[in-house]
Amino acid sequence: MTIETISEARAHGGTQGVYRHNSAATGTPMTFSLYLPPQAEHGPVPLVWYLSGLTCTHANVTDKGEYRAACAELGLAFIAPDTSPRGDDVPDDPDGAWDFGLGAGFYVDATQAPFDRNYRMWSYVTEELPALIAKRFPVDMARQAITGHSMGGHGALTVALRHPDRFKSVSAFAPIVAPGQVPWGEKALGGYLGTDRAAWRRHDAAALIEDGARLPELLVDQGDADNFLKEQLRPELLRAACDAAGIPLTLRMQPGYDHSYYFIATFMADHLRWHAERLR
Amino acid sequence: MTIETISEARAHGGTQGVYRHNSAATGTPMTFSLYLPPQAEHGPVPLVWYLSGLTCTHANVTDKGEYRAACAELGLAFIAPDTSPRGDDVPDDPDGAWDFGLGAGFYVDATQAPFDRNYRMWSYVTEELPALIAKRFPVDMARQAITGHSMGGHGALTVALRHPDRFKSVSAFAPIVAPGQVPWGEKALGGYLGTDRAAWRRHDAAALIEDGARLPELLVDQGDADNFLKEQLRPELLRAACDAAGIPLTLRMQPGYDHSYYFIATFMADHLRWHAERLR
Repeated sequence: MTIETISEARAHGGTQGVYRHNSAATGTPMTFSLYLPPQAEHGPVPLVWYLSGLTCTHANVTDKGEYRAACAELGLAFIAPDTSPRGDDVPDDPDGAWDFGLGAGFYVDATQAPFDRNYRMWSYVTEELPALIAKRFPVDMARQAITGHSMGGHGALTVALRHPDRFKSVSAFAPIVAPGQVPWGEKALGGYLGTDRAAWRRHDAAALIEDGARLPELLVDQGDADNFLKEQLRPELLRAACDAAGIPLTLRMQPGYDHSYYFIATFMADHLRWHAERLR
Repeated sequence: MTIETISEARAHGGTQGVYRHNSAATGTPMTFSLYLPPQAEHGPVPLVWYLSGLTCTHANVTDKGEYRAACAELGLAFIAPDTSPRGDDVPDDPDGAWDFGLGAGFYVDATQAPFDRNYRMWSYVTEELPALIAKRFPVDMARQAITGHSMGGHGALTVALRHPDRFKSVSAFAPIVAPGQVPWGEKALGGYLGTDRAAWRRHDAAALIEDGARLPELLVDQGDADNFLKEQLRPELLRAACDAAGIPLTLRMQPGYDHSYYFIATFMADHLRWHAERLR
C-alpha cells in the first residue's frame, strides 16, 4: 500500500506530515496528518490517536490543536484521521446537512444503502489505518492512547471500550457519550445502521459500559458554556454509567469554555501529559 | 468609534476576541483579533503587536500561532491586525497576484492612485488602531512590544525603528529586512509609493538603520529551509546594517524550518518570553 506525502514540515523539533492513501475500507482516497516528535529519530515512539468532530477534516486539529509543543516535550506521535470518506461519488446527507454524511462518519461501518459502500470509518480507524501506520512510521503500537472531540470523543470512547487491550489511556474533549439518546446520534446511527436500536449499542459509550465494557480510567474535559452540552453531549449519562460500573472517571467541567478549538487547545497539553504518564 | 464583537471565546484562561470597526484610515471595515490573558481581569496588561505576512488576515496567527498559552502564562495581550483594507471597492493587484493589493498592504500609506484611497496601513497600525485599543481594552500602552512574520516582520521592524520610544522590545519571524532590494518589496513599494526610491527608505528596515534609526536590540528567527530566504528575505542585509550601526541583533538560523506557521508556532513562546522580560 502506498502513501503519498502531501506535505512535511519541521515543527517544534519534529515533523508535521500530511499524507494520503487509497483506502480499501472506504473505497476512497483518505488523508490524515501525523506528527512525529524529535524522539522518533532515535526509535519508535508512543502513538496518540485524535478523532475529530463533525464537519472536521484532519486539518482542524492540525492547525488549531496546539499539540505539537507537548508532543515534542513528551515524545509522543499524534495522528489525526479524517472524519468520513470524501469524493464526488460518496453519498452525502440528502439535505446537505452538516451532521450526517461528509464530515460526519460517526466512526461506524454503515449497513444501510447507499452509505454502506463508503462509510466504513470503524474499520478504517481500528484496522486499516493502524496497520498502515505501524508499517510505515516509527511508532510503537504496543503503546497507544486515544482521544477525540465531540463526535470524535464518541469515536475515542467506543473504539477504546471495544479494544480494551489496545490503548494504555483514553480521554475525550466534550464527547458525545450516549448517541442513542441524543439527536445527533439518533440521526447518524439511524441513518448508517438502521432503525434497530440494538445495533446502536455497540456504538454508544454509555450503552457499551452498561453492557459490560470496561476501561481502567477515563479523563474528560467539558466546557460549561458549550452550546451542545445539554442536548447533544450530556456528560451526566457517562457519569452515571461509569459510577454504576466502577470506572474511575475524571470529568472536569471547565467554566466559560465553549465547544471550539480554543477549548480543546487550552486543555490539550494536560491530556497529553496524562496520556504520557500512562504510556511510559 | 464603535467596535463590533465578531466572536469572543475563553482560551487558556483568558479571552480570544475578534472585532471589527470602520476605519477612518482605510475607509473600510477592518477586522482584528485580540487575546486578553487572565491577568487582564485585574488591570491593564502589556500589549504585543503581531503583524502578519502576505495573503494573511488576522485569522492565520489567531488559528495557528500557538501564542495563547505563553501569553496566559506571561500576562501579555496579543493583537493581530489585518494586512490590508478589504472590500469590493478596494483596488487590488491588476493581475490578481497575491503579493500586492488585498492581503499585501505592506504597512505603508500609499501615495499612488488608485491605492492611495484605502491602502493606509501605516496610519492604521501606528495611529488609529493603537488609539482604539487603548480606549477600549485593558492594555498598558506604556508597555508595548512588536513582532511580525515576513511582510509583517518588515512592518514590525519599520514601525519600531520609526517609533523608538513606543516599544520596549522588537522581534521578527523570517522578516523582509530590505524591501528596496528584493522583488516583493520593489513591487510593493513601487506600486504604493511610486518610482522615487528615496521615498522607499522610510519603509525599509536596513535603509532606516543606515540612515540613523536605532533599536536597543533585536531578535530574529529565520528557517534555513525557507523557500524565500535567498531571494526575498536576505537576513544578511539586516546583519550588515545592525553590525555597522552597533545594534545587537540575535539572528537565529533555525535548521530545517520553512516559512510556514509551523515555524512561527515553534518559536512563538520563545519570542513572547523575550518580550515579557523587557516589558516587566
